[in-house]
Amino acid sequence: MSEPYTLILLRHGNSDWNQKNLFTGWVDVRLSEKGVREATRAGELIAESGLAPDVLYTSVLTRAIQTANIALDRADRAWLPVKRSWRLNERHYGALQGKDKAQTLEEYGEEQFMTWRRSFDVPPPPLAADAEYSQANDERYVGIDGTVPETECLKDVIDRFLPYWESDITVDLAAGKTVLVTAHGNSLRALVKHLDGISDDDIAGLNIPTGIPLVYTLDENFAPLEPGRYLDPEAAAAGAAAVASQGKK
Amino acid sequence: MSEPYTLILLRHGNSDWNQKNLFTGWVDVRLSEKGVREATRAGELIAESGLAPDVLYTSVLTRAIQTANIALDRADRAWLPVKRSWRLNERHYGALQGKDKAQTLEEYGEEQFMTWRRSFDVPPPPLAADAEYSQANDERYVGIDGTVPETECLKDVIDRFLPYWESDITVDLAAGKTVLVTAHGNSLRALVKHLDGISDDDIAGLNIPTGIPLVYTLDENFAPLEPGRYLDPEAAAAGAAAVASQGKK
Repeated sequence: MSEPYTLILLRHGNSDWNQKNLFTGWVDVRLSEKGVREATRAGELIAESGLAPDVLYTSVLTRAIQTANIALDRADRAWLPVKRSWRLNERHYGALQGKDKAQTLEEYGEEQFMTWRRSFDVPPPPLAADAEYSQANDERYVGIDGTVPETECLKDVIDRFLPYWESDITVDLAAGKTVLVTAHGNSLRALVKHLDGISDDDIAGLNIPTGIPLVYTLDENFAPLEPGRYLDPEAAAAGAAAVASQGKK
Repeated sequence: MSEPYTLILLRHGNSDWNQKNLFTGWVDVRLSEKGVREATRAGELIAESGLAPDVLYTSVLTRAIQTANIALDRADRAWLPVKRSWRLNERHYGALQGKDKAQTLEEYGEEQFMTWRRSFDVPPPPLAADAEYSQANDERYVGIDGTVPETECLKDVIDRFLPYWESDITVDLAAGKTVLVTAHGNSLRALVKHLDGISDDDIAGLNIPTGIPLVYTLDENFAPLEPGRYLDPEAAAAGAAAVASQGKK
């Protein structure tokens, strides 16, 4: 097999906490009914595209795994090999995990709120290990190299995601496999920033919609041969606008 | 970690073709609505048992994968690492694949019918590679060591399952992991025959019910310390009787 390689990115659908407008991060919430419908639609789009992924990568968070299971089942490819890693997890939102977005915006003001949401290298305050929404004692992270983070900025996500991109995902791409990565808003922003060479400043403006497969065609150095394309461009534009306005009233 | 080791076996729930009373084998049918309910119930039983599987093994057939996905999601363990292998597949039913069980019984008589269903070493006639229900060209079997079978008896299933049991599943058990194997009537009979030392003659009488987790506690040689126990013994007894009478009117 040879390049060009095909990479499909899929952000999980709407979750119970998106629904409630809470910061989620590593808290392991489930898909909402809307999220289940989005995942089903994603599977239809993948099936209709004829792209036929050969291997699935997911985070270890239930909402991404549910999205992948539903989409692949819909696309008659439930049998794909699966690789999961915490390195694909959503950004750890630190002390904001479990907090209401609108309330946080009101309490801290728009500047601080947007810094926490979109700053490249300023993380929210850390979450104490004994806090209600900490994952410090979650068995799925036992034995991860390094310790469970207490908070992360986007730069931190890049620093833990890209080594895995290089050690594992690109190896499957280089073997000619069409790779499906089902993950989260910020872990996918980290990857798209890398792929598209987006600057630290400009990445703040990038919003990835939920539930719509984003397809990249990559050359032998895993660089895009053309801009990534959404399998449903109209829905993607509407979805990205909705993400950008989150927390606003 | 050390022994005793814990192994959980789960036969997939009722499928569309169980519903229609057709021989299925490697044909990749889906769970029926009843099968979805059985898988959900299996997840509840696993959650209530407190056994907490650490790793999932499945076949590459959709009905087993759906069962595992639903059950683990219900048990809040969707994040488990997953290993799939065709070696856990149902027995290949050869030329019987796609045929009606009651009609086959009528056409060939009870003796021939029961030989095909329960003989240890007599496989049904082979299925031609160009037949409607052949998997000779299914992409998921590209590159499997050996070729896609054209038919199998239980002995053949044992011969392809046990090497994987020894090379992979027992390694996870020896590492102290609680292993969940979600598979099929005959691949699980193959494993239970091995674990319980059932003779080639007596295995014909063993029926494993769908959707009820069967738990083994194993010593350091992976031999059972006590008989396997179903997490819902009453439902298991009723289910085994129903399997035994399949195809009968």
